[in-house]
Amino acid sequence: ESNPNLIRATLFPGDGIGPEIAESVRQIFKVAEVPIEWEEHYVGKEIDPRTNSFLTWESLESVRRNKVGLKGPMATPIGKGHRSLNLTLRKELNLYANVRPCYSLPGYKTRYDDVNLITIRENTEGEYSGLEHQVVRGVVESLKIITRQASLRVAEYAFHYAKTHGRERVSAIHKANIMQKTDGLFLKCCREVAEKYPEIKYEEVVIDNCCMMLVKNPALFDVLVMPNLYGDIISDLCAGLIGGLGLTPSCNIGEGGIALAEAVHGSAPDIAGKNLANPTALLLSSVSMLRHLELNDKADRIQDAILKTIAEGKYRTGDLGGTASTTEFTNAICDHL
Amino acid sequence: ESNPNLIRATLFPGDGIGPEIAESVRQIFKVAEVPIEWEEHYVGKEIDPRTNSFLTWESLESVRRNKVGLKGPMATPIGKGHRSLNLTLRKELNLYANVRPCYSLPGYKTRYDDVNLITIRENTEGEYSGLEHQVVRGVVESLKIITRQASLRVAEYAFHYAKTHGRERVSAIHKANIMQKTDGLFLKCCREVAEKYPEIKYEEVVIDNCCMMLVKNPALFDVLVMPNLYGDIISDLCAGLIGGLGLTPSCNIGEGGIALAEAVHGSAPDIAGKNLANPTALLLSSVSMLRHLELNDKADRIQDAILKTIAEGKYRTGDLGGTASTTEFTNAICDHL
Ligand SMILES: CC(C)[C@H](C(=O)O)[C@@H](O)C(=O)O
Ligand SMILES: CC(C)[C@H](C(=O)O)[C@@H](O)C(=O)O
Repeated sequence: ESNPNLIRATLFPGDGIGPEIAESVRQIFKVAEVPIEWEEHYVGKEIDPRTNSFLTWESLESVRRNKVGLKGPMATPIGKGHRSLNLTLRKELNLYANVRPCYSLPGYKTRYDDVNLITIRENTEGEYSGLEHQVVRGVVESLKIITRQASLRVAEYAFHYAKTHGRERVSAIHKANIMQKTDGLFLKCCREVAEKYPEIKYEEVVIDNCCMMLVKNPALFDVLVMPNLYGDIISDLCAGLIGGLGLTPSCNIGEGGIALAEAVHGSAPDIAGKNLANPTALLLSSVSMLRHLELNDKADRIQDAILKTIAEGKYRTGDLGGTASTTEFTNAICDHL
Repeated sequence: ESNPNLIRATLFPGDGIGPEIAESVRQIFKVAEVPIEWEEHYVGKEIDPRTNSFLTWESLESVRRNKVGLKGPMATPIGKGHRSLNLTLRKELNLYANVRPCYSLPGYKTRYDDVNLITIRENTEGEYSGLEHQVVRGVVESLKIITRQASLRVAEYAFHYAKTHGRERVSAIHKANIMQKTDGLFLKCCREVAEKYPEIKYEEVVIDNCCMMLVKNPALFDVLVMPNLYGDIISDLCAGLIGGLGLTPSCNIGEGGIALAEAVHGSAPDIAGKNLANPTALLLSSVSMLRHLELNDKADRIQDAILKTIAEGKYRTGDLGGTASTTEFTNAICDHL
């Protein structure tokens, strides 16, 4: 019963406000006539032993099969003996690069109006190895793992992205003055890849200095590539520059061409079900997904409609200082389509 | 020949612009009649085998004896087999806490005018363990070490600082959702200390979220305490909010009551010897040193004169957009004393 003219994509509406903002995406895709058929999956109520998490094996299989998906916020249930949903997705689907475009939204004022950068985060290793132990009482250690394979892979992705998106420069962010071996290996891999892209400028910036420069003058940066934890920190910092996680898209790239776009904000249980949530992050993530599918016309049209609606400022949700409901904001976007 | 009415303090003028900005401190302390006698030490031209660095054993002994010192920028000479000067100082003098007050300077405009916070960084362990190795070809690991002793010590310092400086809240910055054992131990220690200071509010903030909040609304924070690397990152981010490392004081606290204040910016070899350097960071660091010595009247007077000179804006060095020389700026401060 599946329509062969449609692209099948997995949709995880997620928890809390997830279903409402996912509905906003569904509605806008319908109006924009995006040739996508959603395959919906919810987080399970029990731990699936095949994933050791609340994510069902079927939902992971769905992403593996469709190679493309969109994910709302998922609240990891409290308890022991299972893994965080986000980390499970990254591990199981080998989502090796997290890509977050971050640009100032015209008409939505923050202290910055000149942000236009892309953070590309290694998403599988580094400080997220999960390897930790107590050495003796009162002394604990965590292992940060950097591999040549994962570093080359994310560096390759970053340079390819820069080249195919008309970007001029890639900055590798590191702390190799202290972690000479781990961050040193990361930089070595970036340099190797940089040599294959002579048309893209390459520089290396120490993370502390990078954060200082970002808050002073974010226009100094273009594409940033970095190990896992620095990416976690810097992508949130950059989101803050333009207004927060409610406004920034994110897309995870996995082996075999998988792309899982996601809203990285929380599930906001306090406003869930009240038609108050801002769907912008999930909408812009769905635009990233469309670009990955090379549906650039649709992506441009939807992105324009979102940005125009925010710029006009007539319909804004509460987090942006307005009083519009999720539906009103979504309808306003549809009117712009 | 040492004057018993004077407090002896070690002075490391440092490299590059170091001697010029140190001269500025000397001049201002003279005009303000600060009862301090400087004991000057320079970085050696050869590696001292007793410190395995270019720092002489005598200079470290000087700080240990005087228990108080001021340090300009030190450029670690390139080469193998010796340690960075900054790290050597931290290790040898057991400088366990790095304290950086960070506040908006009246009259010096940045995107923020509401910064008033203190970062307190654990300064001896964490990601700075220096323990790294290659596991197999292409796979390297670094060890992050967190100990109960060092965590309690810096937490105790932070709460004590908050209490004695009229601060209301301490925020512990961490990534314990990922590094449950290491950052978890750090938080556990902070909680233990927090219980002894019921009058100080205590909260825990994940580092990525902290960075986002800092760039959106730094007024949310008061005193921040954190493991080494997060402190490195966040203290530079905060410096960026108010204009950069050229404007922010820093003081290192060591076992046995040692305080080593320092300018954390670089040695700026390009403008060294040209009377162009901005001495503000070293001057404000010397003010931190005076407060540590409980010479609060002198500290207030000098700090007021520095801030007034910057606020007036008539004499500003090139980095702040002015044309004043180091000497003109220093003389202007002296006129305000
Ligand atoms: C929730 C947390 C485990 C996650 C991370 O640290 O990666 C989040 O901060 C993110 O950036 O996706
Ligand atoms: C120069 C470097 C080793 C040092 C650090 O990482 O601690 C610096 O960034 C600092 O903050 O003092």
